[in-house]
Amino acid sequence: MDHLRHADPRHADPRDAEPVEAQPVSCGELTAADVGRAVALNGWVHRRRDHGGLIFIDVRDRSGLTQVTFDPSNAAVFALAETLRSEDVICVRGEVRRRPAGTENAKLPTGDVEVPAGALDVLNRSETPPFVIAADEEPSEDVRLRWRYLDLRRPRMQRNLTMRHRIVKAIRDYFDEHGFLEIETPTLIKSTPEGARDYLVPSRVHRGNFYALPQSPQILKQILMIGGLGRYMQIARCFRDEDPRADRQPEFTQVDVEMTFVSQDDVMRTMEGAVRYVWEHVLDVAVPHPLPRLSYAEAMCDYGSDKPDLRFDVKFADVDDLFRGGAFGLFAGLAESDANRIVALRYPGGASLSRRDFDALSELAKQFGAKGLAYVAFAPDGVKGSIARFVDEALAARLRERTSAGDGDALLFVGDARATANDVAGRLRLEIGDRLNLRDPHAYAFCWVSGFPLFEKDPETGEITFSHHPFTSPEPGQEALFDSDPLAITARHYDLVLNGYELGSGSIRNHTPQFQEKVFKRLGLSDEQIEDRFGFFMEALRYGAPPHGGMALGIDRIVMIACGETSIRDVIAFPKNQMARDLMMDAPSSVPEKALDELGLRIVVPTAGTEKN
Amino acid sequence: MDHLRHADPRHADPRDAEPVEAQPVSCGELTAADVGRAVALNGWVHRRRDHGGLIFIDVRDRSGLTQVTFDPSNAAVFALAETLRSEDVICVRGEVRRRPAGTENAKLPTGDVEVPAGALDVLNRSETPPFVIAADEEPSEDVRLRWRYLDLRRPRMQRNLTMRHRIVKAIRDYFDEHGFLEIETPTLIKSTPEGARDYLVPSRVHRGNFYALPQSPQILKQILMIGGLGRYMQIARCFRDEDPRADRQPEFTQVDVEMTFVSQDDVMRTMEGAVRYVWEHVLDVAVPHPLPRLSYAEAMCDYGSDKPDLRFDVKFADVDDLFRGGAFGLFAGLAESDANRIVALRYPGGASLSRRDFDALSELAKQFGAKGLAYVAFAPDGVKGSIARFVDEALAARLRERTSAGDGDALLFVGDARATANDVAGRLRLEIGDRLNLRDPHAYAFCWVSGFPLFEKDPETGEITFSHHPFTSPEPGQEALFDSDPLAITARHYDLVLNGYELGSGSIRNHTPQFQEKVFKRLGLSDEQIEDRFGFFMEALRYGAPPHGGMALGIDRIVMIACGETSIRDVIAFPKNQMARDLMMDAPSSVPEKALDELGLRIVVPTAGTEKN
Repeated sequence: MDHLRHADPRHADPRDAEPVEAQPVSCGELTAADVGRAVALNGWVHRRRDHGGLIFIDVRDRSGLTQVTFDPSNAAVFALAETLRSEDVICVRGEVRRRPAGTENAKLPTGDVEVPAGALDVLNRSETPPFVIAADEEPSEDVRLRWRYLDLRRPRMQRNLTMRHRIVKAIRDYFDEHGFLEIETPTLIKSTPEGARDYLVPSRVHRGNFYALPQSPQILKQILMIGGLGRYMQIARCFRDEDPRADRQPEFTQVDVEMTFVSQDDVMRTMEGAVRYVWEHVLDVAVPHPLPRLSYAEAMCDYGSDKPDLRFDVKFADVDDLFRGGAFGLFAGLAESDANRIVALRYPGGASLSRRDFDALSELAKQFGAKGLAYVAFAPDGVKGSIARFVDEALAARLRERTSAGDGDALLFVGDARATANDVAGRLRLEIGDRLNLRDPHAYAFCWVSGFPLFEKDPETGEITFSHHPFTSPEPGQEALFDSDPLAITARHYDLVLNGYELGSGSIRNHTPQFQEKVFKRLGLSDEQIEDRFGFFMEALRYGAPPHGGMALGIDRIVMIACGETSIRDVIAFPKNQMARDLMMDAPSSVPEKALDELGLRIVVPTAGTEKN
Repeated sequence: MDHLRHADPRHADPRDAEPVEAQPVSCGELTAADVGRAVALNGWVHRRRDHGGLIFIDVRDRSGLTQVTFDPSNAAVFALAETLRSEDVICVRGEVRRRPAGTENAKLPTGDVEVPAGALDVLNRSETPPFVIAADEEPSEDVRLRWRYLDLRRPRMQRNLTMRHRIVKAIRDYFDEHGFLEIETPTLIKSTPEGARDYLVPSRVHRGNFYALPQSPQILKQILMIGGLGRYMQIARCFRDEDPRADRQPEFTQVDVEMTFVSQDDVMRTMEGAVRYVWEHVLDVAVPHPLPRLSYAEAMCDYGSDKPDLRFDVKFADVDDLFRGGAFGLFAGLAESDANRIVALRYPGGASLSRRDFDALSELAKQFGAKGLAYVAFAPDGVKGSIARFVDEALAARLRERTSAGDGDALLFVGDARATANDVAGRLRLEIGDRLNLRDPHAYAFCWVSGFPLFEKDPETGEITFSHHPFTSPEPGQEALFDSDPLAITARHYDLVLNGYELGSGSIRNHTPQFQEKVFKRLGLSDEQIEDRFGFFMEALRYGAPPHGGMALGIDRIVMIACGETSIRDVIAFPKNQMARDLMMDAPSSVPEKALDELGLRIVVPTAGTEKN
């Protein structure tokens, strides 16, 4: 933390004009090697302890803590020190000395030394903060967000923001080394809805008209490729006016990449190189080379999810055939139709679970949307469990063979409509992982998933819609399916998955206007709608658009996982809360009538009914 | 341009599944050393010439051009080549060979070689573009912005965006090496007007309320310092809803820096280090160490401007005393009051100018706001010029002494109210520099200007307002002036100037709530206004705010100067035009009624009257 050395405090505190020989140092750097040095420490009063007639103060800055001692023999300084309270800002000068034998603090990098205060300046006072920075327990998130500047002083937040800086810096270094240009795309753009709602920005100069904030730079980065820039990247702020939800932010950050004249494989290799670079350079963790690849079909078959957590190797086993025509009527019935699926999930060591444990798992399965949960356990004294009476020796043997279940393991069975079975069994799988501590936050299991369908059916309207976005191109040779069986078309689309989270996705794009129009029309857009929303983009495709593809990865999520956090709010300096509100600034807020007049707008919904928080 | 090597074209063009040994190369990399290599070139048809029965095509990508030749003996390929037109996108395979002796192109890095096309794929066709990319002359700016993706293909724009990438990368490297964390501050914040108008973003979730887009991260970076982050930097997008003007963009980018426990000098040294790093590493141009420093008073005295162009050493000379009580009544009168100033400006070699030249300069001075322009020329045959009859030998000698004017030089005199005299003489000074070619776009004269007044009088209202922003602190020891003579208070504020442009400014901030409140009140804000606009910030100052200061530099302007451009629009990928409109996307634009309904807003100004462009 050499760079945190503070500048000369003589300048910082103009009241003190006398020449001082003390060297400014950061609060985290002093060790036994510094004994005898005259130093100046600037920082916050982290902890104060009065003991044996002395005052001990831990002075804190971003780099760490140093213990400062005040002795009554230095009367004026001691008197001033007696007035110090938590979070006061001070400058202390003194000569570094060894702590008395036996009082060293091995947990602190500076724990061998202390600085007896020869001089003390109080640079600013603090009122009593709403929570204690030095405390181990964490205040509620509302309190943390309301006084974010105090929350940011906590070592955990400083570590997270430092990690975020290092990760983003590494990403930029990597792409720079690989010939990518970081190009800034505008934040005030045209509204071209891509799925979620746009945030709108009224124009004062062109009243009655609006800019939109970009949901992503998707079209603009494609236009950069059409503009011949070859290799683009940007750490880009994106905006989506979606309904509030737990881990959703109105604005978020992605590393946005696009390349010309590339295959899906080229983009994947480039992007996994970036991730590998970050993990190896910043986290000092090796990552497999190349990363494992799964097809969408494999992922759904083995894990019931297109973002499988591969930190543990429990896989689904299909057992429809084993129950078909069998004694267990429910499963026998389900097994008759291909629209259903019966999944067996091995619970390693699950035979030792109690009836109550299984009941709890069953309850959970119901919360996940299942009608119930069947299970068997291969206990020392034979097959037990809710459907044990339907599992004879032969079936037990076949189940064990199919699932690799051994003595002492249990099997959970989820039988349901295919999508439900996948979802419920997938979530139960993660539950098993959690219970067996197989989801180590410091283990990192990356994988690629590709081979997604290009289109899907909107569950509400039944209409055909895009799975990802309308710019994704299909694998070649499927043109005929556009009319005959659009849902069977495979996209040149790929997701990067880490520990069960989707880090981001990308695709090879449609680069001919003819094909792009075909897709828009297949999605039900009229000529007029295409022209109105995408006219400029369709025109760009007509002037020599090169083949291109790219990807975007969510920075907030990458940093969250790298920091071992579970909320992206903990890796964002000033996040909004779950209601899209900034509790510190109190935004959004009302604005003067005059501002709306200038925009030519009137509020037609009274503000009175607006909920706070 | 090694990194521009294209990925394997086999993947890029799925129609071609046969194994190909050709190595993908960029269009700018081939030299005589590559003769004999089988290569694949992907790019655009830049120029086509049919000559001697052959077809010559320059294939272009970001890295440059390579000449490809088509021979009728390869009939199928030749036939396809005959269909090629400008901006078609092609992939050509062939074996690199030397150009026939005498046909080399020394201007082109690849000019020693060519690639005879063994195979040709047309990856996409282009309609006839609205202007020729390969042309030397530039289309109008409206055309360039309307088809920006074509404009971006021009080498000049590609060079500018590459330069921008390299400069911004170097800035980040520098601050990273110096222990700064890049921390992202939010784009959706609370409206706290700092001078210009905020862009507002209506909230759908909290109807009737608005976010604002930040004019700068000023308050948030100060809050990061209060949050103990120590050293912050960000390449930050800023937004100002100002009235359209020639070189103004609704959104712009700045490198935003803040540090704790620092003096003005510390910040200046840090920032000039960044600029030096960029100029030395990216432009390969040495920069003086340290940079020259001027006081505001010196700058105004010598150059009539707080952003002097120091590429040439013409300085103002004050000659009030020489004219006081003299024969030239106008100047004699002006010289009686300290509110006026009479500036003499040496025009090196100006004695050779014609009467018409001086008339033109005089006209210019009037355009700049002067009532007229007086001048004398020290011609071989004596003193000439508009006020020569008032300049006797003694006065001539004293003028020459005062201004260092020699034989053959002329002197321009601007006498007026001080501010007008400074402005007009300052602009005439730049005119002299332009006429004498003293303002070399490849010369870089940096300087610091500091010692600005903290407050100034609003020219319209006569009220006291801040010169920079309300967070700037005064030099210590001037508290008494707050009531007696606020305009005499000097700020701890500093501007970095390059070639007559202000690159940016910074200051040491008010860090105690008491002092910040004093400033707000001196600016005429009521308790209620302070609480409403800055309540959260005032509260933050009460919880142990450290002394801190920082700066922001305009990236667009830095890159513009480094690229030798004169408009920031030429260093921005997708700029708005002078009416804040994006001509390519056609933004801002109308939005569906439904979107406004959801926001609880109604347009009360008809959109019909909105001007386009």
